[in-house]
Amino acid sequence: MSTILITGSSRGLGLELIQQFAALLPENGLIIAAARTSTPALEAVIAREQSRVAFVALDITDEASVVRSAEAVRAILGDRKLEILVNCAGVIGETQEKAGSSADLALTLSVNVTGTHNVTRAYLPLMQGGSSVKKVINISSQYGSMARARENDYAKLPAYKISKAALNALTVQYALSYEADGFVFMAVHPGWLQTDMGGSGADLTVSQGAKAVLEVIVAADEQSNGTFRNIHVAGSEIYRGEEIPW
Amino acid sequence: MSTILITGSSRGLGLELIQQFAALLPENGLIIAAARTSTPALEAVIAREQSRVAFVALDITDEASVVRSAEAVRAILGDRKLEILVNCAGVIGETQEKAGSSADLALTLSVNVTGTHNVTRAYLPLMQGGSSVKKVINISSQYGSMARARENDYAKLPAYKISKAALNALTVQYALSYEADGFVFMAVHPGWLQTDMGGSGADLTVSQGAKAVLEVIVAADEQSNGTFRNIHVAGSEIYRGEEIPW
Repeated sequence: MSTILITGSSRGLGLELIQQFAALLPENGLIIAAARTSTPALEAVIAREQSRVAFVALDITDEASVVRSAEAVRAILGDRKLEILVNCAGVIGETQEKAGSSADLALTLSVNVTGTHNVTRAYLPLMQGGSSVKKVINISSQYGSMARARENDYAKLPAYKISKAALNALTVQYALSYEADGFVFMAVHPGWLQTDMGGSGADLTVSQGAKAVLEVIVAADEQSNGTFRNIHVAGSEIYRGEEIPW
Repeated sequence: MSTILITGSSRGLGLELIQQFAALLPENGLIIAAARTSTPALEAVIAREQSRVAFVALDITDEASVVRSAEAVRAILGDRKLEILVNCAGVIGETQEKAGSSADLALTLSVNVTGTHNVTRAYLPLMQGGSSVKKVINISSQYGSMARARENDYAKLPAYKISKAALNALTVQYALSYEADGFVFMAVHPGWLQTDMGGSGADLTVSQGAKAVLEVIVAADEQSNGTFRNIHVAGSEIYRGEEIPW
């Protein structure tokens, strides 16, 4: 495991994953931080890690940007293959009282589902043919679970929940399409984290969440393909590492 | 049960549902056939049923058309409330080899998910306040089941499958939002039917499928809210009327 690309990496979970993978990967490891624009926090990581972390501009909602980013990633990789892709970029949508009041469904689907799809299909050729396991991790949410919809009804985020269910379905379709080529596709619930998206009242620090997601990514194998998994946090009743029902 | 609106009703399952409901509803029943444009087949039904079947122009992908159609439906209803809405309009997308080859995901989500959402939220005020059970039936597909994805992998329709999973999630969100107001939202698998969409090699005639869907609609009650149900066809091993796993 020595090459990884993370989208949505200018802040929040994506940025923290960049830092934790930088500490984990071997000296010749290559971490590509993709985001619409860089941030001072990401620049600081890049300066500290020298050539091991590279920035690539990527707006996942803009197909031309996706294509350009794939060319940039190819140039950075050189003869190497991309081994891990973490689709972390996404939006949460506006909080709404009821489903019928949701005006943001089209936008939320466009970013969280079609955007993830466009990135994945553009980057697949950069992964195909590699000898090691090829992992694509889609950062989902247990709010996307239809089986848990009633217990999650307190959170009035219908568009976000629908988009994450669709992202899970996207993950399953990719998992079946590419398992014969040695790919592992997983949807992961990263926990409720103290990011800009999650707010300061969330369950876990960004660092705790990223550590748990990183563990899921490292452990992912053929058995994981096409699954939807919760993170595991020691002692937690909420984050038990279980497979989440659709 | 005396007022019903069916989208996608110019042909296929929608058209057949119009005809079968016309036979079922009382003399004062009102059936609204919504579609982008009428067809000779629909015109023939309207001519035969006189004032009991009315056509309303509706392009579910065009928000202005949706709003105009809601005004037209309100005028047709007069003092009455709409009791049943059947969201039958949808597209199947192009057949693709693998998920990464799918170029039609954005379009398919836009029609099958956002389109259904826009229709539903525009028509909700025409249903709210009615004294009888208010039913919204979303015509889904068991291809949308993630639990059954592996057994359905023979059909290379990734965008369609993802869109139907998202439609199911939409159904669940509406079901939770409006159950206290007496609504029942259901996702229904209508079977593989010999329509233009299904092709001539399909399992069931359009008439058989519409009859089975009609039975699900009539039987829908509070217990059905937020469920995803297969049709029941006597003697069939495939259509057993079961709740389909997400």
